[in-house]
Amino acid sequence: MKAIIFGADGFEDLELFYPHQRLKEKGITVHVASMQKGPIRGKHGYEIAADLAFRDADPADYDILVIAGGKGPEKVRLDKAALEIVKHFFRENKPVAAICHGPQVLISAGVIKARKATCWIGIRDDLIAAGALYEDSEVVVDGNLVTSRQPFDLYAFGREMVRLLK
Amino acid sequence: MKAIIFGADGFEDLELFYPHQRLKEKGITVHVASMQKGPIRGKHGYEIAADLAFRDADPADYDILVIAGGKGPEKVRLDKAALEIVKHFFRENKPVAAICHGPQVLISAGVIKARKATCWIGIRDDLIAAGALYEDSEVVVDGNLVTSRQPFDLYAFGREMVRLLK
Repeated sequence: MKAIIFGADGFEDLELFYPHQRLKEKGITVHVASMQKGPIRGKHGYEIAADLAFRDADPADYDILVIAGGKGPEKVRLDKAALEIVKHFFRENKPVAAICHGPQVLISAGVIKARKATCWIGIRDDLIAAGALYEDSEVVVDGNLVTSRQPFDLYAFGREMVRLLK
Repeated sequence: MKAIIFGADGFEDLELFYPHQRLKEKGITVHVASMQKGPIRGKHGYEIAADLAFRDADPADYDILVIAGGKGPEKVRLDKAALEIVKHFFRENKPVAAICHGPQVLISAGVIKARKATCWIGIRDDLIAAGALYEDSEVVVDGNLVTSRQPFDLYAFGREMVRLLK
């Protein structure tokens, strides 16, 4: 099994590393994707190397997509290849887990309409304007989609993310 | 089930939050203990409230002890009540998971002699001088004791920590 995690400079550190290590714990190969291959830096200073650029990723290779929050998603959502990856996952009904500001990428990919979801409260109104059915809970599961609000929800996010892989 | 995690100002953020959220994911109640009840701050700036002071903790209440790394352990190891908690866990053969600089607390509690363990490489020689059987691997399991080296080992640390609870 293989996972792809979206990140970019300013990513929320715990929101990238928790699912990254949690999926590795399950024996899953995890690739971090960004606008370019190479190091990216979280808002709290942690660094990780992006394994590949969005444009070089074949989404058919991956079984789950994770979108970390922080300041990364406002950059990621401008990358057309990233949005094509997101659309592939929704078209194929494969697991997608997005936390905090991560759902900004789902808005830009046009996949959030009529889906139950949550997010960082500061972008709640954007999610609602895009047609999502917003809920204020630690984790919301709607079919293939798992969403959470913030780093202290990671325990619930991780639990449901792993459950989707079964 | 209940877990107690040791932390103090300067804790390694991922090494505290990963096991904290991972144990919550399993439905386990997690308490953070420090020299005083109240907020502690990680070296990367994350804050969490310590639920109780070491001196107010009854170790018999807890099923697993986790010791996060960073700059916290050099403070924690000076607290006699913290060391008494560690000794209780070893006497009762209950699970203990320590990562990075966390084993400094095990040295001070006098429980590491003749035990297979790993740690942050910068304190390797202290572990060896204290009589531990040091190994350079992502995770070392010796009976009730799980140890790891650094944040990128968390996936293996988490896996073995959870396995000890079974």
